[in-house]
Amino acid sequence: MKRKGLLLVISGFAGTGKGTIVQELLKKYDNYALSVSATTRDPRPGEENGIHYFFKSREEFQQMIRENALVEYAEYVGNFYGTPRAYVQEQMDAGKDVILEIEIQGALKIKEQFPEALLIFVAPPDARTLEARLTGRGTETAEVIKKRLSRAVEESEFMSRYDYVIVNDDLDICVEQTHHLIQSEHFSTLRSREFIETLQKDLKIFE
Amino acid sequence: MKRKGLLLVISGFAGTGKGTIVQELLKKYDNYALSVSATTRDPRPGEENGIHYFFKSREEFQQMIRENALVEYAEYVGNFYGTPRAYVQEQMDAGKDVILEIEIQGALKIKEQFPEALLIFVAPPDARTLEARLTGRGTETAEVIKKRLSRAVEESEFMSRYDYVIVNDDLDICVEQTHHLIQSEHFSTLRSREFIETLQKDLKIFE
Repeated sequence: MKRKGLLLVISGFAGTGKGTIVQELLKKYDNYALSVSATTRDPRPGEENGIHYFFKSREEFQQMIRENALVEYAEYVGNFYGTPRAYVQEQMDAGKDVILEIEIQGALKIKEQFPEALLIFVAPPDARTLEARLTGRGTETAEVIKKRLSRAVEESEFMSRYDYVIVNDDLDICVEQTHHLIQSEHFSTLRSREFIETLQKDLKIFE
Repeated sequence: MKRKGLLLVISGFAGTGKGTIVQELLKKYDNYALSVSATTRDPRPGEENGIHYFFKSREEFQQMIRENALVEYAEYVGNFYGTPRAYVQEQMDAGKDVILEIEIQGALKIKEQFPEALLIFVAPPDARTLEARLTGRGTETAEVIKKRLSRAVEESEFMSRYDYVIVNDDLDICVEQTHHLIQSEHFSTLRSREFIETLQKDLKIFE
């Protein structure tokens, strides 16, 4: 049975380590592919075109929208962000589980369009741990940290719209759990329709 | 976070090895407990009361029904079979994932009563493999095998009512997949409501 790839959406509050989890999944296992987003925002130092983002002009981005070349897109703090459709489709057809690391707004749009997409939310063990992690980074001002925490409050209202909530307490355990969870989803009846229908049909020789 | 046990239902056609999978899960991992069914049928050679079944008289069984002491029950070829409620509840409260190895009829009743129950169907890789396994046992007459296969045809219509379909091709791989699948389900949002609500509430300190 040829296995088709899953469409995975991974979201989470700032400071929960979802980026690290995604990087570890890509490093440790060979069944994943990361979707690279298109954006109209300017590259930050060290960011490369085609690796971190596809950097597009506003005109180019709007053309992609018109051509239905984006699976989803959203405007966020004045810039557009979107998921190019071609790469996602190619990778899934090749059997890869494609990871989209996107915001909640985009995640819910994906679920509407692709009910079979798997939505995973990365959560901290508790509220104080989240605060400690954001503070511990030492890279953001108190004001930015406050903003991120109050954003987490808003975002937390959408957690139950996801399929799974993974708690990132120990990174290695969390990565392994996430991997097992994703691989298990290949056996859900929702995603096994082809196998079920073939078996039902073939069994009829014994009727 | 104290983990509550899951209610697991494992079904499958005769000859798919579901009994062996259940035995391996119990042997290899310590988080499972097997629910012992009550029945009015006579014990077969080697079957022990309280281990393989709770053997009950028809009167005793009917009293259990009246006292709501059964999670589900069904009549099958003239005998009653049912799942005693007390043991299931105790084990789940103690954090054990309780396995019910029951027929489709009972499985669907469980899902009605406990929407959070996890229904797993064990399938053969294909129809011919199922036939070969039933024939290979060498313990049943051609007539019995024919009956089992035609029963599989009927049962296959209900496969998509289950949550997952596990293919038993290689036993060890199948047991490991089943275990990972079950453990992953602890992270489903449906089964993480308590954690989600606590986190949402605690985050409000940052509002």
